[in-house]
Amino acid sequence: MARVYNFSAGPGTLPEEVLKQASEELLDYKGSGMSVMEMSHRSPWYENIHNKAISDLREIMNIPDNYKVLFLQGGAHLQFSMIPLNLKKNGKADYLVAGTWGKKASAEAKKYLTVNVVASSEDKKFTYHPKVDPSLLTGDADYYHVTTNNTVYGTRLRDKDTTCLKNVPLVADMSSNILSEVYDVSRFGVIYAGAQKNMGPAGVTVVIIREDLIRDTDPMVPTMLQYKTHSESNSLYNTPPCYSIYVCGLVYDWVKRKGGVGVIHAINEKKAALIYDYIDRSNLFKGTVEKYDRSIMNVNFVTGSEELDKKFIREAGERGLVNLKGYRTVGGMRASIYNAMPVEGVQALVEFMKDFEANNI
Amino acid sequence: MARVYNFSAGPGTLPEEVLKQASEELLDYKGSGMSVMEMSHRSPWYENIHNKAISDLREIMNIPDNYKVLFLQGGAHLQFSMIPLNLKKNGKADYLVAGTWGKKASAEAKKYLTVNVVASSEDKKFTYHPKVDPSLLTGDADYYHVTTNNTVYGTRLRDKDTTCLKNVPLVADMSSNILSEVYDVSRFGVIYAGAQKNMGPAGVTVVIIREDLIRDTDPMVPTMLQYKTHSESNSLYNTPPCYSIYVCGLVYDWVKRKGGVGVIHAINEKKAALIYDYIDRSNLFKGTVEKYDRSIMNVNFVTGSEELDKKFIREAGERGLVNLKGYRTVGGMRASIYNAMPVEGVQALVEFMKDFEANNI
Repeated sequence: MARVYNFSAGPGTLPEEVLKQASEELLDYKGSGMSVMEMSHRSPWYENIHNKAISDLREIMNIPDNYKVLFLQGGAHLQFSMIPLNLKKNGKADYLVAGTWGKKASAEAKKYLTVNVVASSEDKKFTYHPKVDPSLLTGDADYYHVTTNNTVYGTRLRDKDTTCLKNVPLVADMSSNILSEVYDVSRFGVIYAGAQKNMGPAGVTVVIIREDLIRDTDPMVPTMLQYKTHSESNSLYNTPPCYSIYVCGLVYDWVKRKGGVGVIHAINEKKAALIYDYIDRSNLFKGTVEKYDRSIMNVNFVTGSEELDKKFIREAGERGLVNLKGYRTVGGMRASIYNAMPVEGVQALVEFMKDFEANNI
Repeated sequence: MARVYNFSAGPGTLPEEVLKQASEELLDYKGSGMSVMEMSHRSPWYENIHNKAISDLREIMNIPDNYKVLFLQGGAHLQFSMIPLNLKKNGKADYLVAGTWGKKASAEAKKYLTVNVVASSEDKKFTYHPKVDPSLLTGDADYYHVTTNNTVYGTRLRDKDTTCLKNVPLVADMSSNILSEVYDVSRFGVIYAGAQKNMGPAGVTVVIIREDLIRDTDPMVPTMLQYKTHSESNSLYNTPPCYSIYVCGLVYDWVKRKGGVGVIHAINEKKAALIYDYIDRSNLFKGTVEKYDRSIMNVNFVTGSEELDKKFIREAGERGLVNLKGYRTVGGMRASIYNAMPVEGVQALVEFMKDFEANNI
């Protein structure tokens, strides 16, 4: 078996240790005589898996006691609806639009409330993270929504730069950088993330929500779309995506063994710097976003020639460095280097970039 | 490794061959160098898996060309909302209430339209499948909803007994007996089923829908809850639960290798008869539902003594016959014998029942 270095933007690479454990346990989980896929979600076997995943996530993200952790379905896309449907009170919300997903989130919210886009970087094709003038934030907004990492364009919003008003809940889509760097959960009202980048297989969405934001909604909101439904039943109102939650739990455990999110963050900064530093010295490759705003998860770069970009992607693939093609509407290259991408994978990529530059300039 | 016979009502037992293949391919799918969990849902690798699962399901269920197959999230519970939200036109629908799920489905639908319960078996605690007087069906209903198998109580509605009006779409929740016996899809408007009984891991919901029923909804319906969203993008509007779909695909392939749904149906009738015939001869065990309506997926029975029931469940567990406890609101025993339960498992259960009867009467 030869594993490749997989730079896919998501679903993305998972820790090999986690996959090995999942493979070994697939027919018989710890002597239960059955697969986790085959377990009743009401069985003590599964409940232990479920509750350990929640408590491990609490531990590694340092989630305060007055927050609930929910495992839902439907991805970030369903959260784009659930956030306004559940948080609506005064009927207005602020959105920071820093890319494709922020734009989609705000468009969906417009169905349900008045959306105020406080800043957008669409003027320069999302090649920077927009700065927010705090005086533009709405004092009685129901919430203020940000995206902490833009998978498509490769920008990020650091914890220290997520300014918000004191009485307006901050809501963050962290789908593509949760667990990659430390965010102070206590400053957020809601954090949500699809699992398929830094946590596990697609099909489970983590929602971390401050308890006072779990309210009765308009009764017309589908029962499955009310946070209260899932909060009151510890995400066991109906059958949850048990196997995906199990794999997330293995990943949380792996994060703990690695030393926690802080340690992983330091490694991620180093991994990203390896590529960005080379790009900044290169005569062939160019970064596509403003330096301060560069994502440490999704590294976008171009050669300036579509033909060379294609050649690069093809030849990288032949060396076992796969899925380097940029997003369909952006082009160029994108190396997604999530938590599970080992330093060796990034080094192999930089080595290949050097070779490619030497041969093509 | 010792596998048990797992009679869980769901998530339930899966074919051992399928689990073996999944385990072997978990770190490296067919030389791709990666797990299916790690594949971009836009990659040719995954698209092949996705499209093969759809075409195999079409084949084994003999789904006509004018139907779409969708892989969604949220389980049958989310369909309880999506059905009325998408099919609403005249604002009324008929429901046949044969158990817990039919009751829940109709309760959720009442939020969105006028529900007419055409028949219910709640008068006798759902111990039979209610017969429908066709004259009670609403001529201009938007749809007529049935549940073909009641997991909790162990009753079923056969294909030949699913009468409906010609111009009213028949909608069926087949969560707990899809692929277990032949249903003529062309007679249905919509068939939906959570995967976790006869298809694969929890976290994916199959929706088979006649194309003319995929319509523009009220724009206030969340984008993710519109069938049109998923139909237009071949269930790739957002990241689908890829790994769960992959396992479903392995199960569809297994059904094909077994000879198809017809062959499996014959085996299922035999498996169910082994238990029911013994129950009918037994001096200790009693069935709990009317004979004609007995489910071939979920076999409910009791000893008449709560204490003996408990003893039975405990001693069965010691023999590797697990998860025989009845539903929490029903009590007694329930043996769920889905497609993947081998005849040997059912024989082992009947042998144990005989021993238990001999020792406890």
